[in-house]
Amino acid sequence: MAAANEGFRALDEKSLVEYIKSTPALSSHLGEHLDGLTVKEVGDGNLNFVYIVVAPNGGSFVIKQALPYIRCVGESWSMTKERAYFESLALRQHGSLCPDHVPEVYHFDRPMSLIGMQYLKPPHIILRKGLIAGVEYPLLAVHMSTYMARTLFFTSLLYRSTLEHKREVAEFCGNVELCRLTEQVVFSDPYRVVEHNRWTSPYLDKDAEAVRGDNDLKLEVAGLKSMFCERAQALIHGDLHTGSVMVTADSTQVIDPEFAFYGPMGFDIGAFLGNLILAFFSQDGHAGQGNDRESYKQWILKTIVETWNLFQDKFISLWNEHKDGNGEAYLLSIYNTPELQVLAQKKYMNDLFHDALGFGAAKMIRRIVGIAHVEDFEAIPDASKRADCERRALNCAKMLLKERRRFQAIDPIISAIKEIAST
Amino acid sequence: MAAANEGFRALDEKSLVEYIKSTPALSSHLGEHLDGLTVKEVGDGNLNFVYIVVAPNGGSFVIKQALPYIRCVGESWSMTKERAYFESLALRQHGSLCPDHVPEVYHFDRPMSLIGMQYLKPPHIILRKGLIAGVEYPLLAVHMSTYMARTLFFTSLLYRSTLEHKREVAEFCGNVELCRLTEQVVFSDPYRVVEHNRWTSPYLDKDAEAVRGDNDLKLEVAGLKSMFCERAQALIHGDLHTGSVMVTADSTQVIDPEFAFYGPMGFDIGAFLGNLILAFFSQDGHAGQGNDRESYKQWILKTIVETWNLFQDKFISLWNEHKDGNGEAYLLSIYNTPELQVLAQKKYMNDLFHDALGFGAAKMIRRIVGIAHVEDFEAIPDASKRADCERRALNCAKMLLKERRRFQAIDPIISAIKEIAST
Repeated sequence: MAAANEGFRALDEKSLVEYIKSTPALSSHLGEHLDGLTVKEVGDGNLNFVYIVVAPNGGSFVIKQALPYIRCVGESWSMTKERAYFESLALRQHGSLCPDHVPEVYHFDRPMSLIGMQYLKPPHIILRKGLIAGVEYPLLAVHMSTYMARTLFFTSLLYRSTLEHKREVAEFCGNVELCRLTEQVVFSDPYRVVEHNRWTSPYLDKDAEAVRGDNDLKLEVAGLKSMFCERAQALIHGDLHTGSVMVTADSTQVIDPEFAFYGPMGFDIGAFLGNLILAFFSQDGHAGQGNDRESYKQWILKTIVETWNLFQDKFISLWNEHKDGNGEAYLLSIYNTPELQVLAQKKYMNDLFHDALGFGAAKMIRRIVGIAHVEDFEAIPDASKRADCERRALNCAKMLLKERRRFQAIDPIISAIKEIAST
Repeated sequence: MAAANEGFRALDEKSLVEYIKSTPALSSHLGEHLDGLTVKEVGDGNLNFVYIVVAPNGGSFVIKQALPYIRCVGESWSMTKERAYFESLALRQHGSLCPDHVPEVYHFDRPMSLIGMQYLKPPHIILRKGLIAGVEYPLLAVHMSTYMARTLFFTSLLYRSTLEHKREVAEFCGNVELCRLTEQVVFSDPYRVVEHNRWTSPYLDKDAEAVRGDNDLKLEVAGLKSMFCERAQALIHGDLHTGSVMVTADSTQVIDPEFAFYGPMGFDIGAFLGNLILAFFSQDGHAGQGNDRESYKQWILKTIVETWNLFQDKFISLWNEHKDGNGEAYLLSIYNTPELQVLAQKKYMNDLFHDALGFGAAKMIRRIVGIAHVEDFEAIPDASKRADCERRALNCAKMLLKERRRFQAIDPIISAIKEIAST
């Protein structure tokens, strides 16, 4: 790996300032007086170092540098720093398709695996933290449905020629190491005995064991894993949980697409919806004096419904708008009547819905019995109470994974969630 | 395209001899006396020039040169000569996996798009010609099931790591122009009005029109086209019809994998089985005095059954043999009981069977109402009789495409074929 790391040096707060001074694409954002820069390391993710840089004149940006290993595990779990290249590509492509919900990239340095991008100023916070705090975001469903509809539609064969598609697919095959991490932690480890799996023990010991012994579940997961590895449907974010979204009351910004590659659309949609369902099931653990979180739970469920329904509407609108474009999946000369177009769209959306439910369920399961948990549950101090919340979420996920094909719309999903919540 | 053609010159029988003399990897196969070479151009395919080269000492090889257009259409339909590169890659990979049924590559010259390979000597003939002549090949099912099981299994995620897989997928994305040709002529043109479509007119005018107006058929075809474009399941041959197989009584050799890429396995299996079904339905047109072809039709049906059943057995045997290898689709640590392994294999093979039936049916349809027809039918001089044969084949294909999921084994397919044949 020596050659791969040529030109690379890990920066710290001090050497970063020198780097900025010698990089006009960055320093131009900060005005004349670079000596009064504030630099703060804030990376709370698992993989990278993240610095917020603010100049005396108010100019600012974020610097994200990938190191050749997984930060939260240490140098023992190596991970190509080339992920920063794919993150920068995805930010730029998704950003050009949906500039309102993707931070702007100012600078990318491939040997240094370093991205300089728009700083999302306070009061932006990570959506997951807002969900734990019980904050409603009235525009969240509107914004996320726009983001998903636009990034997925415009990078699919509904819009693109197969010529463009294959060229892009080939490029993103290079992000294989990050794909492999997902394959392992989402589709494999929760279903077998591995040391780094964990769960709220002893309460969930039997539940974790039941997951590992559930043949139907494992057969469904095999199908989803194959789809994840084999199906290049669109340029997906690849890690679209509620920790990859920053929000204020009127802004929604999707960050951290380092897992981006050409994969199944349902993986992104499912990640987002699945993490909202996790947030829902965690609320009982956050209920306290004066706030039983009941109305907040209703808001989360409403947001799930609106996100899917708006996504579907917007995706189909884009399809109708571009049906005589370069997209090669459904040529207008073949799908040439309004009736047939509606049939084709219904079938496509129904399949996508089932994919999203399956992937969403798999993402839920891995957050309860796999290596990486979510703060929604982790922040519940009482282990017994936490386990109760997690068990309901796990049962919901298992049901969705195995029975998803009997659902034809999002409303019955909400009824099923409510029923499991009342157990 | 000037740069892409740098170093390229189209050879003829004379300049080829000079080329051979200056290329040791070729001339070494021919002994000392190169002056008495016999060179014969025999390309009867659609895309290339093919020369048989034989030396006085009996040494021999075949030279295949791709030109930057489709030979049978002319220079107006350009087609990257880089297809020869992918053909050479596929011949070498499939050849190393299944040397008994793939000709050996002696030499590849990328700028010249020229492959030198083993000459398959007489009495080798193209299988399609043997099927038209009514010749039985007792080992055909045994050989083709081995070829398909080995080439598909060993290039899939049942055997490979996702690291190898993504690297190979990226490489073969370069063969996009050939993929696009398939997308157009198999999945698009038969279902819309385009000038180069043809059929046995006027007899099949209504049948061709019915194909273009069949919503259920077109919805199924859209699903198959998406799978063809998006699903990188294994390194497939990409054009495995009975014209891509050379046979004798005891030898079966698969040639011409210039359409090779990472696609759905069912496309290869379906191409072969679908073309056998076409051969079956064409037999009534070849029946004559003293040979009603009835026993030959039975042999074709038996070959279809044996090919699928043997393929299935061999594929599962390979899976069992390598279940603790590097393949990442079904990790032994997860699929950890004999019962679960059997369930996983049944589900996998059932899905693959339905894919093969769907793709096979699509390949049948395009040979009857699309641009490129098959000699099985073309060789029937009486247009009315030919149309009757083609209509039965077309009806069979439409049924298979729309109803394939109700079949769980190959025997009921044979019953359905027989029923349609008796109409």
